[in-house]
Amino acid sequence: MFHFLNDYSESAHPDIITAMHDAHLQQHKGYGFDEYSERVRDQIKAQLSDPDIAIHFGITGTQANLVCIDAMLTPIDGIIACDTGHIAVNEAGAIEATGHKVILAESKDGKLTIEALDKVRVRHSFTPHVVRAKAVYISNTTELGTVYSYHELKAISDYCRKHDMYLFMDGARLGAAIASSHANPNDKDMSIADYAQLTDIFWFGGTKMGAMFGEILIIPNKKIATDFNIYLKRHGGLMAKGYLLALQFEVLLKDNKYLELCHHANTMAKKLAEGIQSCGIELFVPAQSNQVFALMPQALIATLKNDFEFYEWEQLDNGFSIARLVTSWATPEMQVDRFVQLLQKATSNN
Amino acid sequence: MFHFLNDYSESAHPDIITAMHDAHLQQHKGYGFDEYSERVRDQIKAQLSDPDIAIHFGITGTQANLVCIDAMLTPIDGIIACDTGHIAVNEAGAIEATGHKVILAESKDGKLTIEALDKVRVRHSFTPHVVRAKAVYISNTTELGTVYSYHELKAISDYCRKHDMYLFMDGARLGAAIASSHANPNDKDMSIADYAQLTDIFWFGGTKMGAMFGEILIIPNKKIATDFNIYLKRHGGLMAKGYLLALQFEVLLKDNKYLELCHHANTMAKKLAEGIQSCGIELFVPAQSNQVFALMPQALIATLKNDFEFYEWEQLDNGFSIARLVTSWATPEMQVDRFVQLLQKATSNN
Amino acid sequence: MFHFLNDYSESAHPDIITAMHDAHLQQHKGYGFDEYSERVRDQIKAQLSDPDIAIHFGITGTQANLVCIDAMLTPIDGIIACDTGHIAVNEAGAIEATGHKVILAESKDGKLTIEALDKVRVRHSFTPHVVRAKAVYISNTTELGTVYSYHELKAISDYCRKHDMYLFMDGARLGAAIASSHANPNDKDMSIADYAQLTDIFWFGGTKMGAMFGEILIIPNKKIATDFNIYLKRHGGLMAKGYLLALQFEVLLKDNKYLELCHHANTMAKKLAEGIQSCGIELFVPAQSNQVFALMPQALIATLKNDFEFYEWEQLDNGFSIARLVTSWATPEMQVDRFVQLLQKATSNN
Amino acid sequence: MFHFLNDYSESAHPDIITAMHDAHLQQHKGYGFDEYSERVRDQIKAQLSDPDIAIHFGITGTQANLVCIDAMLTPIDGIIACDTGHIAVNEAGAIEATGHKVILAESKDGKLTIEALDKVRVRHSFTPHVVRAKAVYISNTTELGTVYSYHELKAISDYCRKHDMYLFMDGARLGAAIASSHANPNDKDMSIADYAQLTDIFWFGGTKMGAMFGEILIIPNKKIATDFNIYLKRHGGLMAKGYLLALQFEVLLKDNKYLELCHHANTMAKKLAEGIQSCGIELFVPAQSNQVFALMPQALIATLKNDFEFYEWEQLDNGFSIARLVTSWATPEMQVDRFVQLLQKATSNN
Repeated sequence: MFHFLNDYSESAHPDIITAMHDAHLQQHKGYGFDEYSERVRDQIKAQLSDPDIAIHFGITGTQANLVCIDAMLTPIDGIIACDTGHIAVNEAGAIEATGHKVILAESKDGKLTIEALDKVRVRHSFTPHVVRAKAVYISNTTELGTVYSYHELKAISDYCRKHDMYLFMDGARLGAAIASSHANPNDKDMSIADYAQLTDIFWFGGTKMGAMFGEILIIPNKKIATDFNIYLKRHGGLMAKGYLLALQFEVLLKDNKYLELCHHANTMAKKLAEGIQSCGIELFVPAQSNQVFALMPQALIATLKNDFEFYEWEQLDNGFSIARLVTSWATPEMQVDRFVQLLQKATSNN
Repeated sequence: MFHFLNDYSESAHPDIITAMHDAHLQQHKGYGFDEYSERVRDQIKAQLSDPDIAIHFGITGTQANLVCIDAMLTPIDGIIACDTGHIAVNEAGAIEATGHKVILAESKDGKLTIEALDKVRVRHSFTPHVVRAKAVYISNTTELGTVYSYHELKAISDYCRKHDMYLFMDGARLGAAIASSHANPNDKDMSIADYAQLTDIFWFGGTKMGAMFGEILIIPNKKIATDFNIYLKRHGGLMAKGYLLALQFEVLLKDNKYLELCHHANTMAKKLAEGIQSCGIELFVPAQSNQVFALMPQALIATLKNDFEFYEWEQLDNGFSIARLVTSWATPEMQVDRFVQLLQKATSNN
Repeated sequence: MFHFLNDYSESAHPDIITAMHDAHLQQHKGYGFDEYSERVRDQIKAQLSDPDIAIHFGITGTQANLVCIDAMLTPIDGIIACDTGHIAVNEAGAIEATGHKVILAESKDGKLTIEALDKVRVRHSFTPHVVRAKAVYISNTTELGTVYSYHELKAISDYCRKHDMYLFMDGARLGAAIASSHANPNDKDMSIADYAQLTDIFWFGGTKMGAMFGEILIIPNKKIATDFNIYLKRHGGLMAKGYLLALQFEVLLKDNKYLELCHHANTMAKKLAEGIQSCGIELFVPAQSNQVFALMPQALIATLKNDFEFYEWEQLDNGFSIARLVTSWATPEMQVDRFVQLLQKATSNN
Repeated sequence: MFHFLNDYSESAHPDIITAMHDAHLQQHKGYGFDEYSERVRDQIKAQLSDPDIAIHFGITGTQANLVCIDAMLTPIDGIIACDTGHIAVNEAGAIEATGHKVILAESKDGKLTIEALDKVRVRHSFTPHVVRAKAVYISNTTELGTVYSYHELKAISDYCRKHDMYLFMDGARLGAAIASSHANPNDKDMSIADYAQLTDIFWFGGTKMGAMFGEILIIPNKKIATDFNIYLKRHGGLMAKGYLLALQFEVLLKDNKYLELCHHANTMAKKLAEGIQSCGIELFVPAQSNQVFALMPQALIATLKNDFEFYEWEQLDNGFSIARLVTSWATPEMQVDRFVQLLQKATSNN
């Protein structure tokens, strides 16, 4: 039984295990005041124009989201998100637990559009009866594995600045988005520096690109950055052994190791998507990164599940479901081939 | 420069690194639905009388505290804690962030007494103008490294049950407390089962006894246990790769490995304390586990800090400070000896 | 300039002013422990089968909503509401400020349907990643002035009980809903007793039916009722001179005075609606209580606003807007006639 | 049976009832956008140097406190208060419900001292593990009826500005404090302008000086003032018929009516205190405003309670209790005389 369930099935890339081993008996300062954390901060800053940019580390994605939003908003502010956004649906009310409304906007292929954004913003001008629509949340790649192009991001960023709203990017799969942009001849090769210019605060997730856990939180906007580590502490997000977070990113950032790992995941997904389409099966959204959403008959899904684990994302009314298949840095090409072969066999039988 | 700063300077015991290595390319289910988590739950349950007891895993101590308290209290409830308690002073308002008042009670050697508890409870009966004093928080070992005896715990537990209050125990250093009870001929040899009988909810911390991070959360009281993992998720405390938490505890629980590690830490602290006292220096509280609090002249502290890192816990008015020295599973006996020798030299010079 | 802006333009019915005058130098106990409060509680209980039902008083509608929801839900619970519901759009994030997600469901004429409810409930079963959909919020009359029939309410109530969810009814304009049911030959004549049977908690607003301010909060479900006045206090909703709340309701409940006042308001709205339709103007939703929503050209609205104040509820794309006109216990019939005459003149000119 | 229980036993001064009557059928805009509110704002501004100062209206004291604190602090901030402060003990966790820690400081006669303040501030510098001590709360008069002199207030204000902390004054009985300063030859005659200079935000309560309910909230500090009415709305503190709040203050502010009423209350308390002391009974704190705290044998209290209602504030260990007697604008001198006579009789019998 092989898992295409998600990109966090395997714990960590071997290089990270090795680095963990090499460091395990050294003494380090706690709570992010250590040398690893300083080195990774310097490494990031070297890619950016602002030597004073605030850089912190988080442990889980939901926590990164809730801490960033808690630090960003005043109590009377809400944050706009796609109706498919992670903070809107899959964080068990974590944002509301910080006292903030997630204002829903319509999405297209998992992405926020300027039209949807504008509609929502206008509706929130009936002061003092409504929350202020003060920030915009996007995830990149999106929950549906689609990737914002540079021009799409720039348009949202410009819109936010024009209307005095913050732009916040959830980067649980930002590595996959960057790798996707590099592989796409029609898009700019995106970098950390680009996101730092376009957003007010964003994070870059390790868990889904080969780390055991952890995120780098980058805060270009000075107004949000003040005393950010107290926000982390307040939500239980300050690890005693914080050096373990930085240690892993040092491995992933070295020689852009993460890009190589994400490129593999994306390539496997592309191969999977093409194999699926070759069997006459339609995709629900374009496969732009390491996730494939395919419209499959429920009976077919049942058959495939004898050999592979994956999510039946949503049941539709017509006997079909949306199946989600996720690849990772650790996905063997052989398993992709096996899946496609099984699918070919199953669909030709029909 | 050697650190007696804390017990989380070194990342993890070698056996944990090995276990991490062995597992790193296997595929596991996410969010605590994996086999490691199941095995550790079974291992704990085997020691308890209740096969249905809820057992979860947390990532940091502050998070464990805030999640437990959020799950335990209704909005109108407060929780009583010592004025030295971790939730009262050193969690950056994490408990208040969940909407709850931490009601302060006086402490003696870092411990809560029945007298202090009763005084506070009576004061909170002026309904509807005050919060309900619905729960009691203790940490064991305490912030000052002291250890509750079985009889002290039993008295607090009985008091709570009599007054329909929950008893919650923070076990950031519970391993050290258990090891201390085993080394103390006047106390019962405490076990997980004892705490499960005496409390309504408690946690058992890994970070300070050789794990990279992580806590086991044990909830004997059924009323609190319902849907506890949603509380974890809501606060960003549900790790995608949750199996990493359980994997570490499997190592520590095997053959009571943790007891051996904690016994080492306590023994080193005892030796340190005796060495300090032999130089005519008084302790601030008895050294019962792996922390030593000593009353030292500030000039002496400055001298010692040329060779050792440790906390100047509190400056007093008389030119003295309370110095805190912490030992761990990884503390070499040689460093304890070196410290005492340096102290002897420094104090004989005076 | 006459206001059809809302039903809280005039402060209070003369009988209430008189009662206020009569009582103003007497001494009363504070915080709802007075004789007025007791008498009103007894008056309500006499209409219900449960002599132990919890009855409290609130000050504003938003506060009543947030206090009820805070008392009803555990931290991991969300509450389902129509996308047009007051708690969903017009309470400046008051519900999120208590830590709870308002889960949006589609509405039809401002009402929640079983279909919409079911869709949302099913989507919230992906534990532990989503909030529990534990309660359902409706307002009656709705934000659009429509009224739930007994059968509609019964269906929602049954659905909630089947799925172990609470039903919460916001009664900011419940008087108008009751009066509407009494005037409607196709509906049951609704009473407080009916709502107490169908819901778990609901409130009955005074502000919009002749009181200066105030609500009666009625809690049939015992699980929610415990220590409810601490919830009020916690949110600043416990008035020192709480007897002023009860005093007003005593006047309104005497001989069902409130029904007479609400009947007047509804009748004025009906006359207004018919007058509007007679000018060839369509209503946006049926006028079932004391609010009229009409689809008017924006130029016509501008003309009418020279003589009357009312809300331009929403601008549409086609040069039309939804105009909202609200009547009250104090609306003189003459003003309704004047409005219709002006409208006839303005529309015949076109 | 006459009540010295509190200063909110009687609903409102006759002039307010008259004003309520005069206005009750006029139409007003809702939510504080009416002419009464504008007039009262202008009246206050005319006494101050800042024509742009933000002025709002609240409904209850606990609500005023929680809304001000919610608007003043960022999530990581706490507020320092006396251990006897209203927000510290008698608001059922209302401040914690907004996510903020109330940091306790020792009090002297119900007042905060610079020494106590400094001790607490220093203790809260252990970043990022503690909340920021960002604001200071005082009430004036205090919970014990004592009054801050101008010099005491100035010292606290200077301290706060030096350490970049906000000073917030709860004025539930500010009228009594002002009247007390005017009657005291050793103190400055205080005015609204003085408080506006010394604090960052404060409120002036109507409930305890002859209004039915209501407070004026005055915000000299611009950083706190932004969008304050959304904070009120968010906590259910924005009254539909907000003009009722302003209408009452218009009466009380006219020709400083409130000063006359508060002066009466204070004078009655002074007479009561002197009568009590003349019977050989000691006061717990000096009687500086309209509250008298006296140390009485519990048996004596029982006797007095046959004829008068008042609070037994706290039972002491020696058979004595602290009795609290409160006078108001409505207290007849005859009742004070009756009480003293009864006391004389009871104590001479002993």
